Amino acid sequence: MTRKVGIIGVGMTDFGEFWEKSYRDLIREAGVEAINDAKIEGEKIDALYVGSMSPGILIGQEHIGALVADTAGLHGIEATRVESACASGGVALRGAWMSVKAGVNDLVIAGGVEKMTDSSVGAATIALGGAADQEWEVFHGATFPALYALMARRHMLEYGTTEEQMAMVAVKNHHNGSLNPHAQFPFEVTLEQVMKSSPVADPLKLLDCSPITDGAAVVILASEEKAKELGVEPIWITGSGQSNDFLALHDRASLSETKAAVEAAKKAYKMAGVKPSDIEFAEVHDCFTIAEIMAIEALGFCKKGEGGKFTQDGETSLTGSKPVNTSGGLKSKGHPVGATGIAQAIEAVLQLRGKAGKRQIKDAKVGLTHNVGGSGASCTVHIFERDAK
Amino acid sequence: MTRKVGIIGVGMTDFGEFWEKSYRDLIREAGVEAINDAKIEGEKIDALYVGSMSPGILIGQEHIGALVADTAGLHGIEATRVESACASGGVALRGAWMSVKAGVNDLVIAGGVEKMTDSSVGAATIALGGAADQEWEVFHGATFPALYALMARRHMLEYGTTEEQMAMVAVKNHHNGSLNPHAQFPFEVTLEQVMKSSPVADPLKLLDCSPITDGAAVVILASEEKAKELGVEPIWITGSGQSNDFLALHDRASLSETKAAVEAAKKAYKMAGVKPSDIEFAEVHDCFTIAEIMAIEALGFCKKGEGGKFTQDGETSLTGSKPVNTSGGLKSKGHPVGATGIAQAIEAVLQLRGKAGKRQIKDAKVGLTHNVGGSGASCTVHIFERDAK
Repeated sequence: MTRKVGIIGVGMTDFGEFWEKSYRDLIREAGVEAINDAKIEGEKIDALYVGSMSPGILIGQEHIGALVADTAGLHGIEATRVESACASGGVALRGAWMSVKAGVNDLVIAGGVEKMTDSSVGAATIALGGAADQEWEVFHGATFPALYALMARRHMLEYGTTEEQMAMVAVKNHHNGSLNPHAQFPFEVTLEQVMKSSPVADPLKLLDCSPITDGAAVVILASEEKAKELGVEPIWITGSGQSNDFLALHDRASLSETKAAVEAAKKAYKMAGVKPSDIEFAEVHDCFTIAEIMAIEALGFCKKGEGGKFTQDGETSLTGSKPVNTSGGLKSKGHPVGATGIAQAIEAVLQLRGKAGKRQIKDAKVGLTHNVGGSGASCTVHIFERDAK
Repeated sequence: MTRKVGIIGVGMTDFGEFWEKSYRDLIREAGVEAINDAKIEGEKIDALYVGSMSPGILIGQEHIGALVADTAGLHGIEATRVESACASGGVALRGAWMSVKAGVNDLVIAGGVEKMTDSSVGAATIALGGAADQEWEVFHGATFPALYALMARRHMLEYGTTEEQMAMVAVKNHHNGSLNPHAQFPFEVTLEQVMKSSPVADPLKLLDCSPITDGAAVVILASEEKAKELGVEPIWITGSGQSNDFLALHDRASLSETKAAVEAAKKAYKMAGVKPSDIEFAEVHDCFTIAEIMAIEALGFCKKGEGGKFTQDGETSLTGSKPVNTSGGLKSKGHPVGATGIAQAIEAVLQLRGKAGKRQIKDAKVGLTHNVGGSGASCTVHIFERDAK
């Protein structure tokens, strides 16, 4: 467990609706950018992990590890797809990290990709429904906005969280996204616009929801020795945690807490030897605005129940004490499901390199990413550090 | 890379068509049997890897890691689905092995499951088509029997392999399967029956093809220290290799050789420090009879092009020099896609424990499993040994 692992290259496509680009085009574009960024030759890659949630339904394609490696021109390597619904990207990052940690590989790609807009919105809704419990939730008519609406209502009841506080998450993330050239919806929204947007599943409105998106993201991991050999300075992955919870909401101990995130964070903090107060910025899984509020509570950035107020007080804004979703988050940047966990890692790397442009946090040294599957049945948390310990 | 990893528990369902059992029922049944076999408490499990190819299309469910862990009553752990088409089970085994190797986990489940008979044969064909290249093969009408038929024709042309030699694979595997209480089709077939069975994709006939199957299989892996602590004697995994090749047949250097298998075997042999001649028995991926012939060549059991003759000479029979598919293989035992790679590992464990019943190989010490994705774009090879080195 002593082998150090870091990220030496990053690349991502714009996030959006791209009818002119295929699944392959997207992952190839992100991969080429990451390989160029790392200044390596593709032939040196030992293995590839790719997160993708539902390509079987969305584009009629499985065998995704082989497809992506082939598209990248990589043959004779280990190429594995992992899936954990909307946390597929985070799980790919963890798989790649683990294979270097195990000493099996030295230079590994972790990618994520989803092509969601070629099929109908109905097909995308069916695919996304696969992240919930088909037999106990989806069969009875629940969609994802409905499940998160239940969580929002419970959070409001228990803690007095308001619809305005949720809307403030959208306002903040759209502001950050307006500074991100890769964002799907890089425009500002006002509190009034969010509050007046069409209801989707009460209390969630259209502007409380993340969009359906095409996109891909790739990072390249290396062992400390390999990074030295290549003469590059990695951003270190010092903590990795993954946990799970009951799949269906009705089985969980609480609707207002994401226990898998609490557990994953605990594991990651312990591994990295840091506390929530040491984290300087975070990318969290804001598939709905309420999800960000529950995320910052689960990560220990504020007390349970105080996520709404913490947001309202501006603590999570770009200039606050704990900037959250500097990239714009899923809400503004977009949410190509399998790519999200990797795109979060890319934002962490850019911030720690000091290369996050107009949304740069000053002198960032420690960041965190939080990637959730479905309504919270799975979660990965990763901690990134600029300086080697 | 010095940590030793072994299998301490195995469990599988019968393979077949089970309209009365759901996806969850199947994996739960196999998991409970494996946990009982290992004589452990489920609460001690650190992580779970599960291989499943296409549950999104087949049962409308993704987020499979979380689903399977939840069904097993395991919460607060790492639960990951991996997918590599028909090699998903082998990749799950490798993922679990790697997480123990990395020192991240000590006691890990590797499972595989597929529920293929609830949907129509059409839907299953579409799902399986996802293992091939959707854009370049499936779109143009290719199904899996068609792709393997192309490989068979090429093998016949290059090496004089005959339809009778392919049929002999089916005859042998059905004989072995008739001795396996879990087999879907546990009956003998004659050479004449195979040769006279309905054509599917010339030269492949119905009895050259493995069936569509429901089933699940689970193994439990432990580190050497954990096994000692539990007081159990593992079957050791001494080699693990995974490789990939071009996804579409037309891109490959040869239609008559599965290069990913050659590469995966090379890696596994090297890691275990053994040669093909050291392998005493093997479970190989006989999705079609020609696939077994190409497998034994790729694994180095006979020379390239001589797989047909090697089979005809009886070398791969239960009493031959190199018994292959003692379980009955995919052909007779059945092929619930995601479960296959794990079921192969179970056969290896049973043989090495001396618990394979009427199909037991005498005093087996070293065995191998070979699990292929699609038409060969991915492959895992694992080597199992009875005695600790």
